[in-house]
Amino acid sequence: MAVYTDVSAAGLSEYLARYDIGTLVSFHGIAEGVENSNFLVQTTGGTFILTLYEKRVDPTDLPFFIGLMQHLAAGGISCPQPVAMRDGETLGVLAGRPCAMVTFLPGVSVRRPSAANCGQLGEAMAKLHLAGQGFAITRRNALSVSGWRPLFETAGARTDTVHPGLAATIAEELADLEAHWPADLPAGVIHADLFPDNAFFLDEALSGIIDFYFACNDLLAYDVAVCLNAWCFEADGAFNATKGRALLAGYQSVRPLETAEIEALPRLARGAALRFLLTRLVDWLNVPEGALVRPKDPLEYLKKLRFHRAVDSARDYGIAAAAGADA
Amino acid sequence: MAVYTDVSAAGLSEYLARYDIGTLVSFHGIAEGVENSNFLVQTTGGTFILTLYEKRVDPTDLPFFIGLMQHLAAGGISCPQPVAMRDGETLGVLAGRPCAMVTFLPGVSVRRPSAANCGQLGEAMAKLHLAGQGFAITRRNALSVSGWRPLFETAGARTDTVHPGLAATIAEELADLEAHWPADLPAGVIHADLFPDNAFFLDEALSGIIDFYFACNDLLAYDVAVCLNAWCFEADGAFNATKGRALLAGYQSVRPLETAEIEALPRLARGAALRFLLTRLVDWLNVPEGALVRPKDPLEYLKKLRFHRAVDSARDYGIAAAAGADA
Repeated sequence: MAVYTDVSAAGLSEYLARYDIGTLVSFHGIAEGVENSNFLVQTTGGTFILTLYEKRVDPTDLPFFIGLMQHLAAGGISCPQPVAMRDGETLGVLAGRPCAMVTFLPGVSVRRPSAANCGQLGEAMAKLHLAGQGFAITRRNALSVSGWRPLFETAGARTDTVHPGLAATIAEELADLEAHWPADLPAGVIHADLFPDNAFFLDEALSGIIDFYFACNDLLAYDVAVCLNAWCFEADGAFNATKGRALLAGYQSVRPLETAEIEALPRLARGAALRFLLTRLVDWLNVPEGALVRPKDPLEYLKKLRFHRAVDSARDYGIAAAAGADA
Repeated sequence: MAVYTDVSAAGLSEYLARYDIGTLVSFHGIAEGVENSNFLVQTTGGTFILTLYEKRVDPTDLPFFIGLMQHLAAGGISCPQPVAMRDGETLGVLAGRPCAMVTFLPGVSVRRPSAANCGQLGEAMAKLHLAGQGFAITRRNALSVSGWRPLFETAGARTDTVHPGLAATIAEELADLEAHWPADLPAGVIHADLFPDNAFFLDEALSGIIDFYFACNDLLAYDVAVCLNAWCFEADGAFNATKGRALLAGYQSVRPLETAEIEALPRLARGAALRFLLTRLVDWLNVPEGALVRPKDPLEYLKKLRFHRAVDSARDYGIAAAAGADA
């Protein structure tokens, strides 16, 4: 939760004049987004979200993020849609920060997704993968397999202060994934951070997907693996196969997975678990003394990683036996 | 800025069922209010603010705050209006915290109030003072003159670490104010924290007053003194007499000050400056190491205090010569 940059009503009013969306009625900094400052802005023309991009966002990535939301919205995906200024621009500068105004999506995120929610999420993710095809800009996934070792080196000798033996587990896993990471699977634009707080539901239906600031080009099935981790484990650490089955069935109802993708799923899930284990580990070790915000527990992802290491095949995730598109 | 308590969509939906305001459409924690957690809640019935009262609020004060907003709204003051549940209750419990749902006020606060804004604020404050008459519940001002010495003692020997000689200045001022604090002035319900961020403007008019969580019974002219400090000084520390004149004229257009109030104004302004100097001093000394939120500068109020010590009479604030109601 964060609002890093202070915006004045006078500054915002002046900025709004570049748009054709009416005049300022109210605005409130909202406690969402770890990387950027977000404001809920009401004008005489409607409700919008204004995002100010903070230091951790590379400004050269912004055309990818903004263009992607436009491309996906044009392809029928319910996601925040960048609002164009009178001169056609979608990126501006306010309070010294690059910024964009996007449409406001109704809906609420669910903390404990049901199996039905998982099915809806799977379906929406597959639609997103299809809609992403043809998007002209590309963005490398800096947090895929080649980015994990540098992260691990950042944590270094302090790793075992978080959990005894953690460094050895990560080293072993990393070596295996680096040697055997799948290469020839279908790739495209993935969300890469599609956690329950980035999906909105309204009246029992999925109403939208938000926060595309980790989106990139990578293996489509890796996105599925990220979601199996983020949506299908219970608070006690147990994998809920009913939710896994629902998520995969929802996905395959739109885009059937290829046999090679299904076979790779356990390894992709281990990689996805390692990715969040590593970023959480680094955040955990770098939390300032006395900080009010407690970082997310890296060990949650150690447990998930252990589960995937014990998995025999994608059947353990609840995938139907001969569901592959080419099976 | 803060959201201290986490609220789930499921918990909020269940809580909303006690009201007759429709079902949940969206909710966002907003980065406002230092003491409580606030959420902007959209339902099929409208937009509301949900406040969860955190530890620093005494639950026995809540009937005063809620009742006051109801009383003021009934008296024509534009302020958040508590929404009653189906059973007539306005106070509930959510996520283990006492809470209340209030109406959403359009408008934005101004960072650098103009003289016109100061005039509007003065007028609104006087209307608030009149509308507060007849409110049955009372609440002592714990941060008035009798509360300042205990605050000073909390800061203790560390006071001079903030500014050399500060302890001596405070001690001298405190002794004088304790000995000569006015007693026989008109009293009633005051806002007591009517800073620019607690007043909303829309289309050049004052659209509402928020945040009644310091409201209490005290001298009405003390509220005026708080606002002279909060609204009429420039960023460089200079008192802007045009703004002071506008604020006082606005106030007196609704409720003319008595001669005794006008005569007491410099001392009340010194007291109001000392009150914020002391609370900011204590906050400044108690900020946790590495905290992300920097407390407000106590020395801003030392400068204001010095200005008021040099003042000859209320004329220096821009009050018209014979403006007293009984002059």
